[in-house]
Amino acid sequence: MSEKRPVAIDLRFARESVVAALRTSFKDRPVIDLGDPANADRDLSDAEFAVVWKPDPALFERASGLRAIFSGGAGVDHILSAYELPDLPIVRFVDRSLTDRMSEWVVWQCLHHLRNGIAYAGQQRDRVWHEIADQPEARDVTVGVMGLGVLGADSVRKLKVMGFDVIGWSRRAKSIDDIETFDAAVLDTFLGRADILVGLLPLTEETRGIYDRTLFSKLRRTGSLGGPIFLNAGRGGSQKETELIECLTDGTLKAASLDVFEKEPLAGDSPLWSMPNVIVTPHAAAASDVRALFRHVEAQIARVESGEPLEHVVDRATGY
Amino acid sequence: MSEKRPVAIDLRFARESVVAALRTSFKDRPVIDLGDPANADRDLSDAEFAVVWKPDPALFERASGLRAIFSGGAGVDHILSAYELPDLPIVRFVDRSLTDRMSEWVVWQCLHHLRNGIAYAGQQRDRVWHEIADQPEARDVTVGVMGLGVLGADSVRKLKVMGFDVIGWSRRAKSIDDIETFDAAVLDTFLGRADILVGLLPLTEETRGIYDRTLFSKLRRTGSLGGPIFLNAGRGGSQKETELIECLTDGTLKAASLDVFEKEPLAGDSPLWSMPNVIVTPHAAAASDVRALFRHVEAQIARVESGEPLEHVVDRATGY
Repeated sequence: MSEKRPVAIDLRFARESVVAALRTSFKDRPVIDLGDPANADRDLSDAEFAVVWKPDPALFERASGLRAIFSGGAGVDHILSAYELPDLPIVRFVDRSLTDRMSEWVVWQCLHHLRNGIAYAGQQRDRVWHEIADQPEARDVTVGVMGLGVLGADSVRKLKVMGFDVIGWSRRAKSIDDIETFDAAVLDTFLGRADILVGLLPLTEETRGIYDRTLFSKLRRTGSLGGPIFLNAGRGGSQKETELIECLTDGTLKAASLDVFEKEPLAGDSPLWSMPNVIVTPHAAAASDVRALFRHVEAQIARVESGEPLEHVVDRATGY
Repeated sequence: MSEKRPVAIDLRFARESVVAALRTSFKDRPVIDLGDPANADRDLSDAEFAVVWKPDPALFERASGLRAIFSGGAGVDHILSAYELPDLPIVRFVDRSLTDRMSEWVVWQCLHHLRNGIAYAGQQRDRVWHEIADQPEARDVTVGVMGLGVLGADSVRKLKVMGFDVIGWSRRAKSIDDIETFDAAVLDTFLGRADILVGLLPLTEETRGIYDRTLFSKLRRTGSLGGPIFLNAGRGGSQKETELIECLTDGTLKAASLDVFEKEPLAGDSPLWSMPNVIVTPHAAAASDVRALFRHVEAQIARVESGEPLEHVVDRATGY
C-alpha cells in the first residue's frame, strides 16, 4: 500500500452489494467504508475522494480535504438538492452497464405497449384466444425521447433498430445521427409528434414537475396506438403524480410505464399500483452495479493522477 | 383490363382484412375471391396463380391450370401436410413487415424474461416495492435461436443490438456475421450454451415434436437467469405440449412464452393458460398483413412475367 489518501464510501445501497464490490476494488489505496459502524466517528479529513448515494449530511463537513465527489448513480439530484455542497467537482456515474440496462427497460416497455402486452395478459387470465386487430408495427409508432444524454442517446439508437420512428428532445439543441431532434423552443412541436413519450430527464429546477396535464395534453392523440403512452425512467420528481393519475383515468393518456415516483418507495395506497393501464417497476430500470461504479471511479481517479481532466463533471448551474 | 388470367384467392383470414386489401391490389388482372359465396361453384380452370391459407381441399383439383401457389404465411406446412399438391412451385410469404413483427415479439419476450416481467407484475398486483436482486444484463444471457431463415436472421441481429449474447442453429450449417452458428451435428453443444431458446423453425417431418423433454433437458441450467426459458413463435406442431407442460412444472424449464400450440385455438382447459411461468399469445407474433402479402405476390408475378425466376420457392424435399 502507498501513501495514497483514502477514498470514503457512503452508499445507501443494499449493504451486501457494497461489501462484495469493495473486496475487489481500490486495491492501491485505503478505503473508508462508512457503512461499517466501526467508521462512525473516524476522522475523515484525510479522505481525498468520496463515492456517495444519499450520504450522511455531515459527510462533506467531516471530509474537508476532498478533491472530488462521485455520485453513485446517473443522477445527482440526490445530493445537489439536499446538501450544502463544497465547491468541488461532482462526477456523474456513466457506465456501459448502466446505459445498457436503461435501454433494455425502455425498449422492453415500448414493445410491451406496442404489442398490447397488457391486453394479452388480460386475455390469458380469461383464457380468451383472440388476436387483437389492427396491430401496428414499430415503424407506425413515433417514440419521443426526452433527455438526450448518454442514456437517451443509447435508447434512441436501439429503439430505431427495433423499427420505431424515433425523435428526441433536449433543453439545449443536440444532434444525433439519423434522428430528428428538438429543443426547448419547439417542445410543443415535439410533443405533438409523439405517440410514446419516454422520460429520461435529470431532475433539476427546470424539470421538476414538467410532466403534467398541460404536457400530456399536447401529445399526439391520432396515432396508431389509440392514445398517447407515457414512460418515465428518469426521476419521479419530474412528474406531477396527481395529474398523471387523472390523465390515465380520463383518457388523456392511454397507458404508462413508471419506474420512478414522486416519493419512493411508492406508497402502498397509491392508485397507480392497481390501475389497469399502468406498469409499475420499483426504480429498477437501471440499477447501479456497484462493481461497475467502482471501476468508473477508479478510472476517473487514474485520470486525475495522470493530470487529465475528470469526465462527466456536473454543471452546477444546470444541475446535470 | 387485359387478357391476363385470374388469380384465385383462398385465404382463411379475417374476412374484412382480405376484402380491404383486395380493393387496392391486382389492378391489372381478374381476381377470383373464393371467400365470396358467389364464386363457390365458379370454374377455376383459367386461374393462373393461387394465394392460399388453409384453402378448400378441392381448390387444387378445380384450379387445374395454375402456374404457382403462394402461401399466405411464412410457413407452408398448412398446405404441404394436408393436401395432395400438384407439382408446382410453392412460394413462401417473405416480407419486411412480417419479419419486423416477428423480431418485435422475440425481442419483447426475451427482454420480458430478462427483466423479470412476470415477477414484477406479481409484485405490482401485491403492491410490493422490491427490487429483484442480481439482475443480469442482456450480455450475461445467451439466446439460442433455432431456425436461421429470414425471420431467425433478423431476430438474431436485433437481439445482438440489444446486448444479448446470441448463437444460432439450423439443420444445415449457415453463416451469419458475428454470430456463432451450429448445425444438426452439434445440436447438443448449441443447447448446452443456451439460456433462452427461441424456436423459429418451420414445421416439417424433421421438426415435428422436436421440442420435447430430451431437448429441454439439454439447455444450460447454470446460467444467470436461474433456469432455461423456452420461446416458440414458429409452429406448435414442433412442441410436445404434454412434455413441455411437465418441464415447466418440474423446473426443467423456468418459464416459457408461447405464441403457437399443437392445436389452435389453444383449448380453454389447457393448463398453459394459468401457469404462472407462462406467457400465452394467440398466434399473433407476426400476423400476415394482407396488403403486404398481395404486394409480395404482385412482385413475384411480375418476376415470372418478365422471365425472372420466382423467389422464396419451397424445397419440397425439406419442406421449407
